[in-house]
Amino acid sequence: MKTVKTKFKKFQYFYPYTVALVGAQAENQTNFMSCAWHTALSFDPPLFGVLIAKKRLTHQLISSAREFTVNFLDMEQIKLSAQYGRKSGHDIAKIEEYPVKLLPSKIIKSPVIEEAYVSFENKLVDTRTYGDHDLFVGQVLAIHEKKNCFDQEGILDPKAIRPLLYLGSDFYITTNPDTLDHVLPD
Amino acid sequence: MKTVKTKFKKFQYFYPYTVALVGAQAENQTNFMSCAWHTALSFDPPLFGVLIAKKRLTHQLISSAREFTVNFLDMEQIKLSAQYGRKSGHDIAKIEEYPVKLLPSKIIKSPVIEEAYVSFENKLVDTRTYGDHDLFVGQVLAIHEKKNCFDQEGILDPKAIRPLLYLGSDFYITTNPDTLDHVLPD
Repeated sequence: MKTVKTKFKKFQYFYPYTVALVGAQAENQTNFMSCAWHTALSFDPPLFGVLIAKKRLTHQLISSAREFTVNFLDMEQIKLSAQYGRKSGHDIAKIEEYPVKLLPSKIIKSPVIEEAYVSFENKLVDTRTYGDHDLFVGQVLAIHEKKNCFDQEGILDPKAIRPLLYLGSDFYITTNPDTLDHVLPD
Repeated sequence: MKTVKTKFKKFQYFYPYTVALVGAQAENQTNFMSCAWHTALSFDPPLFGVLIAKKRLTHQLISSAREFTVNFLDMEQIKLSAQYGRKSGHDIAKIEEYPVKLLPSKIIKSPVIEEAYVSFENKLVDTRTYGDHDLFVGQVLAIHEKKNCFDQEGILDPKAIRPLLYLGSDFYITTNPDTLDHVLPD
């Protein structure tokens, strides 16, 4: 049986989504925020999109830098996700208050985060407003991957990494490696 | 330690993503395809985006119908995901070959899928090309939710539902309900 709603108090039915720290360096500042609204957009060229509200410092810095990095978190970094998601760079210097190790990018100027199991260096190629968020579209120029966590095809090893999944309203969950399955149509 | 790549054979490092059957009814046809590239775009108005390659029948039908439904799958429906993802509606009538129960939508003409634990009825409000895919942006007009699977705030109950998560290259995984956690910054 199904319930049908045309009014909904909170629009959270689409979770879980992986959590990434998204940020940039510009205007003599470096800032990141937790982001669970994101998607791949294209394989060739490799494009990855993130949704950021206009009020966030990260919005200002990505717009100014014309680049950003995306840094995916493991379940072990759940506290970091809460800190970088619930606090604004307009109020506190997050990378000082909640330390992460910054590594230089290979191609762009904005740093990646060492704690992440995989990071993307992105050049900003499009920005478009959708309702209360803006979609920043990045062309992925480089990928930093933690050793022994992905196979040759870029498939995550769920025994090595427990990706942090956001469920909404400060709830999180992760994967069960024992449920890994490979299925074809027939 | 990290490895840095500026060339990558397959761009799959961003998974896992939930899997939804996305489709529409138009031109006397109803078709769905498995989609793991999607994201919320806005809370108010509620906007949800899906990425579809131009060659897919689903692309043609959504463009024609100016509406679509998004139907999220449980791990139990893993075979359905493989079938609706790896086969094209241009070659076979998927809803006949791989039966699903279609339910009438409340507001739009395209049906939702009963097997899904939650379905969105969307009015198409924007289409934009990014590389080899098009982003279809839907305004969510109605939500069909399976009973006793979400709380009042729309948070998924991971004991009731094991969301199907795609890892790339026909690999799938799901969540471990015992890892559910609620975390605040301090």
